Amino acid sequence: MTDDTERQVEQAQSAALRLANVDAAERDAALGAIADAIRENSEAILEANAEDVAEAEEMLAEGEYTQALVDRLKLDEGKLESIAGMVESVADQTDPLGKTLAARELDDDLELYKVAVPIGVVGTIFESRPDALVQIAALALKSGNAVILKGGSEASESNRVLYETIVEAVAEADADLPEGWAQLIEAHEEVDRLLELDDKVDLVMPRGSSEFVSYIQDNTQIPVLGHTEGVCHVYVDEAADLEMAEEIAFDAKVQYPAVCNAVETLLVDDDVAADFLPGMVERYREAGVELRGDAPTREIVDVDPASDDDWSSEYGDLELSIKVVEDVYAAVDHANTFGSKHTESIVTEDADVAETFMTGIDAASVFHNASTRFADGYRYGLGAEVGISTGKIHARGPVGLEGLTTYKYYLEGDGQLVASYAGDDALPFTHRDFDGEWTPGHLAGE
Amino acid sequence: MTDDTERQVEQAQSAALRLANVDAAERDAALGAIADAIRENSEAILEANAEDVAEAEEMLAEGEYTQALVDRLKLDEGKLESIAGMVESVADQTDPLGKTLAARELDDDLELYKVAVPIGVVGTIFESRPDALVQIAALALKSGNAVILKGGSEASESNRVLYETIVEAVAEADADLPEGWAQLIEAHEEVDRLLELDDKVDLVMPRGSSEFVSYIQDNTQIPVLGHTEGVCHVYVDEAADLEMAEEIAFDAKVQYPAVCNAVETLLVDDDVAADFLPGMVERYREAGVELRGDAPTREIVDVDPASDDDWSSEYGDLELSIKVVEDVYAAVDHANTFGSKHTESIVTEDADVAETFMTGIDAASVFHNASTRFADGYRYGLGAEVGISTGKIHARGPVGLEGLTTYKYYLEGDGQLVASYAGDDALPFTHRDFDGEWTPGHLAGE
Repeated sequence: MTDDTERQVEQAQSAALRLANVDAAERDAALGAIADAIRENSEAILEANAEDVAEAEEMLAEGEYTQALVDRLKLDEGKLESIAGMVESVADQTDPLGKTLAARELDDDLELYKVAVPIGVVGTIFESRPDALVQIAALALKSGNAVILKGGSEASESNRVLYETIVEAVAEADADLPEGWAQLIEAHEEVDRLLELDDKVDLVMPRGSSEFVSYIQDNTQIPVLGHTEGVCHVYVDEAADLEMAEEIAFDAKVQYPAVCNAVETLLVDDDVAADFLPGMVERYREAGVELRGDAPTREIVDVDPASDDDWSSEYGDLELSIKVVEDVYAAVDHANTFGSKHTESIVTEDADVAETFMTGIDAASVFHNASTRFADGYRYGLGAEVGISTGKIHARGPVGLEGLTTYKYYLEGDGQLVASYAGDDALPFTHRDFDGEWTPGHLAGE
Repeated sequence: MTDDTERQVEQAQSAALRLANVDAAERDAALGAIADAIRENSEAILEANAEDVAEAEEMLAEGEYTQALVDRLKLDEGKLESIAGMVESVADQTDPLGKTLAARELDDDLELYKVAVPIGVVGTIFESRPDALVQIAALALKSGNAVILKGGSEASESNRVLYETIVEAVAEADADLPEGWAQLIEAHEEVDRLLELDDKVDLVMPRGSSEFVSYIQDNTQIPVLGHTEGVCHVYVDEAADLEMAEEIAFDAKVQYPAVCNAVETLLVDDDVAADFLPGMVERYREAGVELRGDAPTREIVDVDPASDDDWSSEYGDLELSIKVVEDVYAAVDHANTFGSKHTESIVTEDADVAETFMTGIDAASVFHNASTRFADGYRYGLGAEVGISTGKIHARGPVGLEGLTTYKYYLEGDGQLVASYAGDDALPFTHRDFDGEWTPGHLAGE
């Protein structure tokens, strides 16, 4: 029996097939229309948002929600303008589609092209900031993917009006986009249903807490692009410039402790621990960082003891654990055992030690003499950030629009048969790579 | 509680961390040692194989196995030599690891490199041809991945001896490879356990029937690289060179009908159906192809009626269904609805129609004026074929050694902090792409 969610996903599927062939100018025009419509529709959007905020404030009074949640939920003219600007900046990105990734002659007049195409239907489940819906819809449209949108229930009124604004703007835009490319789902049961439709949804992108992302991963056969934990380390080697090490370790924890690329455990080589730790600890204390350490650390500085749990905790706050290690190998072992394969950094002036650390660590990002906080799509120059992946398959680390693409092989021939390339008189293949863009049908009718 | 399978996977995990940094020359030397050991150990291997074959022949007599299975199982000196040669050809492939895929300056002395690395631990479950174990172990070793091997129970004696031959050859080779990089599992319960270890196994590659691959996909949270069905189409457009179309449609079905890239349904434009079908059908009949067609087809040629099931059947044999369609759009719709996103081909001299078909089809491979049978890693020039993927994520279509790699971001700095790039006085990023290979630590100590 086809239910409503399945029907929505099927509409997205047929839209995806057509959206894949809408050219970049039309997709960008549609994005421009979305930005304009958000500005024009600001009154209705803010009205709907006020309803969400009023309800959230009641929950706040009842102690169910935090002030931070209410603040994140709240829109105003300024925030709407920056949302519209964000949509325009997505339009300005390089088109991720149509690029010929490889071209190879298999034989005379038999040419293989590997071309970037959209993935198809992307299911997204995201946090209650209302700008998330707009950002995700814009990224999907830019990359030619149909999208199923599920936002937080706290933002349901805002999301509904934003969704309608987007869909109407695209329908009325001077761009031939297929209806049904974006679908809004609202109920929790619809999410469960979505996660079952693994033959119709090509990718799921959950955003939110690591528990939430793990829940999604455990409850669907659809490939998941998301990130769970960020347990990151900074290792201060014996050959480190200790002033640099102090600055990096400070930045990595204090500059913004709530995010996944902040450091959770500082590893210090035992040869420099006595020199390094007292100043470092003082600096952290001044910034209000709660510190725990293993026994060798506590022989040097007066901090609370670290338990085994500390080594695998993502504090997400001004808390840090410190461990003294024997050498770079011990640092690598500790990070590979307790880290979450997100981002690890070494501070050293010794290039060989840097190489040992960087190649030995199994993580999406490994840094030398730089703060872990650089692990981010914007800082990496990826353009619009689709998300961060802690998986190793398809996309790893910060993911740009490329993460929403796959590829298709196009083969242009003039009647070649496999029978000619098999058996005793088999023709050989030339397998010669060349630079060239796919031009449909250029070998036909010559 | 840690069981045996989990312990094996954990051994593979620690081996994977070290194997990732074994250089190409050592991996290739180890592959050479495997090839030599297979030749030297041929007597023991053939003896073990004879036990498997004797048991299989009993099952054949009882009607449990087919003669084809017994034939596939059987090794002889010639087959062993070609297995050894296959291992040497894997060694000859270009190293898939260490390549810098992208290099970007983020700012002065702050350089980001994206470098190809192994995935980690790959679980493989494969058919009962004993050469499969050797091939998969060789591909894993070449790409720096630890591997869990589970073969068909029919080949258990052969697999055990081949596994021991491989592991001992690598241990004794003049190459510093970590112990435990290859693990053999034998019982069905061990497979079930393997599929549960989604936090320790990075990728599963099942080979076998489409039912089997689907079963694996439905029973694990680990990403799966595999292919299920191949329901491929050839579309003969009204602007086709009809002689070419006949040759291609014949090759695509008859050259080797048992494989997934053989055609199952022939789509013919209604303007040329009356011209094209009589000769085509005669040609197929002479080759013993059983034909079915829709009503318009049966007005032109005398074939059995096609049922709805025919459109989605992978015959894998000398059987074919024929459907007359109105135009290229109807052909695209039919293929997108009933096809398996594997390989589709159009025959036409009209470049615009070719473009409509090729961009409209959602499949891993779309061909113009060439037989569907070209969809294959060897013919594509991918070198060693790891498998064929019908998924869209990570790897699509024929997959070479690259499919067993992921990437790591390396960032080389000289003490940069994110605080400098944030706030009112934020430094700008330069984000300048450049050609360059990652050289560990080259900015340190300058």
